[in-house]
Amino acid sequence: MDIASVLGVIIAIALILGAILLGGGTFVAFMDAPSLMVVIGGAIAAAMISFPMKNFLGAFGVGMKVFFYKIDSIPQLIEELVSLAETARRDGLLALEGRLEEIQSPFVVLGIQMAVDGTRPEVMEDILRTELDAVATRHRDGKSIFDCMGRFAPAFGMIGTLMGLVIMLGDMSDPSKIGAGMAVALLTTMYGAIASNVVFLPFAEKLGFTNKQELLAMEIAVRGIMAIQSGENPRVIQQKLNTFVPPKQRVSEDQAA
Amino acid sequence: MDIASVLGVIIAIALILGAILLGGGTFVAFMDAPSLMVVIGGAIAAAMISFPMKNFLGAFGVGMKVFFYKIDSIPQLIEELVSLAETARRDGLLALEGRLEEIQSPFVVLGIQMAVDGTRPEVMEDILRTELDAVATRHRDGKSIFDCMGRFAPAFGMIGTLMGLVIMLGDMSDPSKIGAGMAVALLTTMYGAIASNVVFLPFAEKLGFTNKQELLAMEIAVRGIMAIQSGENPRVIQQKLNTFVPPKQRVSEDQAA
Amino acid sequence: MDIASVLGVIIAIALILGAILLGGGTFVAFMDAPSLMVVIGGAIAAAMISFPMKNFLGAFGVGMKVFFYKIDSIPQLIEELVSLAETARRDGLLALEGRLEEIQSPFVVLGIQMAVDGTRPEVMEDILRTELDAVATRHRDGKSIFDCMGRFAPAFGMIGTLMGLVIMLGDMSDPSKIGAGMAVALLTTMYGAIASNVVFLPFAEKLGFTNKQELLAMEIAVRGIMAIQSGENPRVIQQKLNTFVPPKQRVSEDQAA
Amino acid sequence: MDIASVLGVIIAIALILGAILLGGGTFVAFMDAPSLMVVIGGAIAAAMISFPMKNFLGAFGVGMKVFFYKIDSIPQLIEELVSLAETARRDGLLALEGRLEEIQSPFVVLGIQMAVDGTRPEVMEDILRTELDAVATRHRDGKSIFDCMGRFAPAFGMIGTLMGLVIMLGDMSDPSKIGAGMAVALLTTMYGAIASNVVFLPFAEKLGFTNKQELLAMEIAVRGIMAIQSGENPRVIQQKLNTFVPPKQRVSEDQAA
Amino acid sequence: MDIASVLGVIIAIALILGAILLGGGTFVAFMDAPSLMVVIGGAIAAAMISFPMKNFLGAFGVGMKVFFYKIDSIPQLIEELVSLAETARRDGLLALEGRLEEIQSPFVVLGIQMAVDGTRPEVMEDILRTELDAVATRHRDGKSIFDCMGRFAPAFGMIGTLMGLVIMLGDMSDPSKIGAGMAVALLTTMYGAIASNVVFLPFAEKLGFTNKQELLAMEIAVRGIMAIQSGENPRVIQQKLNTFVPPKQRVSEDQAA
Repeated sequence: MDIASVLGVIIAIALILGAILLGGGTFVAFMDAPSLMVVIGGAIAAAMISFPMKNFLGAFGVGMKVFFYKIDSIPQLIEELVSLAETARRDGLLALEGRLEEIQSPFVVLGIQMAVDGTRPEVMEDILRTELDAVATRHRDGKSIFDCMGRFAPAFGMIGTLMGLVIMLGDMSDPSKIGAGMAVALLTTMYGAIASNVVFLPFAEKLGFTNKQELLAMEIAVRGIMAIQSGENPRVIQQKLNTFVPPKQRVSEDQAA
Repeated sequence: MDIASVLGVIIAIALILGAILLGGGTFVAFMDAPSLMVVIGGAIAAAMISFPMKNFLGAFGVGMKVFFYKIDSIPQLIEELVSLAETARRDGLLALEGRLEEIQSPFVVLGIQMAVDGTRPEVMEDILRTELDAVATRHRDGKSIFDCMGRFAPAFGMIGTLMGLVIMLGDMSDPSKIGAGMAVALLTTMYGAIASNVVFLPFAEKLGFTNKQELLAMEIAVRGIMAIQSGENPRVIQQKLNTFVPPKQRVSEDQAA
Repeated sequence: MDIASVLGVIIAIALILGAILLGGGTFVAFMDAPSLMVVIGGAIAAAMISFPMKNFLGAFGVGMKVFFYKIDSIPQLIEELVSLAETARRDGLLALEGRLEEIQSPFVVLGIQMAVDGTRPEVMEDILRTELDAVATRHRDGKSIFDCMGRFAPAFGMIGTLMGLVIMLGDMSDPSKIGAGMAVALLTTMYGAIASNVVFLPFAEKLGFTNKQELLAMEIAVRGIMAIQSGENPRVIQQKLNTFVPPKQRVSEDQAA
Repeated sequence: MDIASVLGVIIAIALILGAILLGGGTFVAFMDAPSLMVVIGGAIAAAMISFPMKNFLGAFGVGMKVFFYKIDSIPQLIEELVSLAETARRDGLLALEGRLEEIQSPFVVLGIQMAVDGTRPEVMEDILRTELDAVATRHRDGKSIFDCMGRFAPAFGMIGTLMGLVIMLGDMSDPSKIGAGMAVALLTTMYGAIASNVVFLPFAEKLGFTNKQELLAMEIAVRGIMAIQSGENPRVIQQKLNTFVPPKQRVSEDQAA
Repeated sequence: MDIASVLGVIIAIALILGAILLGGGTFVAFMDAPSLMVVIGGAIAAAMISFPMKNFLGAFGVGMKVFFYKIDSIPQLIEELVSLAETARRDGLLALEGRLEEIQSPFVVLGIQMAVDGTRPEVMEDILRTELDAVATRHRDGKSIFDCMGRFAPAFGMIGTLMGLVIMLGDMSDPSKIGAGMAVALLTTMYGAIASNVVFLPFAEKLGFTNKQELLAMEIAVRGIMAIQSGENPRVIQQKLNTFVPPKQRVSEDQAA
């Protein structure tokens, strides 16, 4: 759970509520169901038109990753791969079967399983890289739904405000109601701006970050698994994989041993 | 038929109509023929200036693909290619002629026909790839018409609103009509925003998706056909083509057999 | 003459005039010389500052291409090159001199003339490709003037509107004139939006299209001329050049013969 | 300390304060705590949601680099590397150990230390380049936080203004307060524009500059260290590294000697 | 001196002044010192924060290039290089020393001087290319200051207008002053739009053009100098360099002889 994102959402909401109170407004004046319906419903409808059903339905799960995604510790991943390499070196590739259960990442399990099964190296690498590409595409698609909603929400905010203004301007018989009508009309633009800048755009930005991190971990895993399969020396594997992390975070030979 | 896009359009329209009623407006107040004419007519005219006649006329058909395009099932395509490869392996390339009628994709038919006719492999691949490139260009051009209209519609919305304001400001003798005049003027901007955000931009986004999917299927078909032509082992063909799909969707050897 | 662009401009103008009448306005109310001067003059002045004199003066001619440019028929070009290749094969390169007058494209004339003169192939290709690059650069520069004017026109529209508002706000002694003053001020923004969305941006988009088409024709011509020069078999030349066009438009061997 | 950035911030603040006084306003009229809270708090909250905690917390330090970052003098760096090369040439690589303390850049120290320790050249270059890539990524991430805040600040400015307008429009019983309410509402947009254009966007631009400079210095250091390790002639090293700097700034052979 | 840019600036200013008079305004109503201060001062301050002092101070000189930069005549440059090649061929490389004074471009002088001094070809090319890259970077940085100011000027225009509105709204006791206050407030936005669209953005566009032209001339010079150094035949050098210019502008062998 990434504390920054959770804190950010809480702070943003607190700020908006606080500013309403400090400015002398009431929460009731800031609630308008039809406005909310146009902004959120409109952005969701536009996203449904823009994406295949499968991708659209997956967006909710993708959004949760902003809060609950646990980024794989890369030094820990390297340590695990080096330890697997030692087992393979000492007791042969087949001995890895006994260690499959202790591996957390299903991607590493897939690779080691293939190595144990004696899959040919080219095929193994092809399958692992296709999986990696599929994950990259899925991530890119997931992020692009949030990018899209971040663009559609303010647009539907403006549409709702224009609808409110047209209704208000159509009936100006009671001048005392004009202010209230315009206030309600402006709420929609405000909802659109808040939805876009507190939720959709920051989530898209964050997903871009977690995606880069996850793909780096998968790249390291592919290289490590292929090196284990070809029976390379665990020390050499460690040295190679370590070049992916800055010196300070590197797994020293003693730690991994 | 992609249910998400159909649902999305229905939801968007329902939301807009519902919000008008909930907000206390009447549908009549939201209809204005000249405004609609400026926005839709203007976006269409701008697209006609921007594109050759052939591309412009094709846009309607392209737009229908958002709803009715059936994405080729890639695992099914691979299965078909592997089955064709088995026939070719067992009974020779000429035996494929008898199976041409059961193939659905005209692109695969074109390739297999050339293989049966004994076209030289380089020429075959050149022709298939030129066709693939032509499809990619046609797709890109089709998408770009919707991108263009998505930019032009709000611009003509603003033009119409300015026209309405100029007319309204030119005759302010009857103050009670000012509100109504401004309401009509704002309708044009609203129409432009709705046309852009409910139709043109989401359609362009969706077309980008279906295009990518269709080109991937064609790429797989080209590789499969060339492999069949060169008499490769069906198992090897299957393994190669499978690297294009994530492991879960792969055609197992038993299924395809 | 491309009918779509001509129709598009006519429709756009008709729509705008029609909407004024339908909306109850008069054409006089929509004409304001200083506003027109600021928008069109400003966009032209900004383009003069942005581009060297030669490019700026060429923009008018480039703009005419949107309507009057006749895209070379690519199948016809291939047919011509194959026919020239047959003459060269039968009667030698020098025999092409007698056919120079019947060739329409000056670019093909340049290439065939060099082949007849016995220019070395490397030099020939260098010269043809430099000409192709020069045309590509000239096209890109021509398009970018329209892109620029499409950005400057709305900006000067806004400048003119601000000028009108400042004048109007400076003299509000007669309240009955405020509406008229604001109407005139808004005209400038409207002119800028129309100039940009009916003329400059669609023209830039269209030029991008014709440019791509023209460069493809030149690329085919270069390959054809070089193949003629090296004495290749006309059938092989035809097959090679045909890979640039989709199967349906291809020149069959019988047609070309 | 870069005087331009310090001067720029001072001038911008002086201009804004001066314009308020010259325009006849009072500073009090331009202070509104809730508005400031929405803009600055909102931009910070959005950045917290967008970035992992570590990157977010590092942004303050990154921002300070705009003022206090001392760009490594590249000619001085080359001079130092050539002098180290001379020591290595004359007295052997091990003699460099004695000079480690006089080296300023920790990156050069890291490289020379590895050379002294007899690390294999491939491993050395891998480690140095990974460090360089890590610095490049850290820089890019640091810059992108400022880019983000530069986009979020005006958005929250608009949100705050809409909130102010809704509150103002909800209570128009006292017409004399309308002006003041609208003034306070507009302040938020103004704060957002100032924060974005005086702080966030210029800082992001400047960080892009210092990053490019710092990475160039690291690239030169890597090449110099690898050349020292392989025992190249100091004159040749100097000539090679000098090609990275314009002739006027080059270290002449006499200076470095 | 490029007449188009000078004319463009004059036309733009004349248009704006003319439109003020035609619209019935007075110049005095359009002058406001604090507004000018905020827009120009603000854009300059933001540029100072964004760029190192050296680049910022160089911007004025760079801006002058829009008017006074004399683009090297490329055919004349080729003629000069061919003539130098003839001297070198006839009388040896050392004979070029006597012709150094008649060469105008300092870049060609640098290259020929190195050839005369017997610098090794690899080092010569390295030094010339580094100089070319340094010029390209300096040009890109110079252009980007104008791009930046083109973005900052309208932003500070908006900031100034908001400041004016806040002041105006804060004191509405005298309704007759409201119009004048708003007029002054709008001036700042107008100044920002004029500064951006008449000066900064067109200048940036033009600098992009002159930069491309200058770098092409330097590329031709590098190739010519290296060919002279290696003693190539002047006719071959001419033919090679001519491929950089369109056929119509080429230096015929007779002209150059």
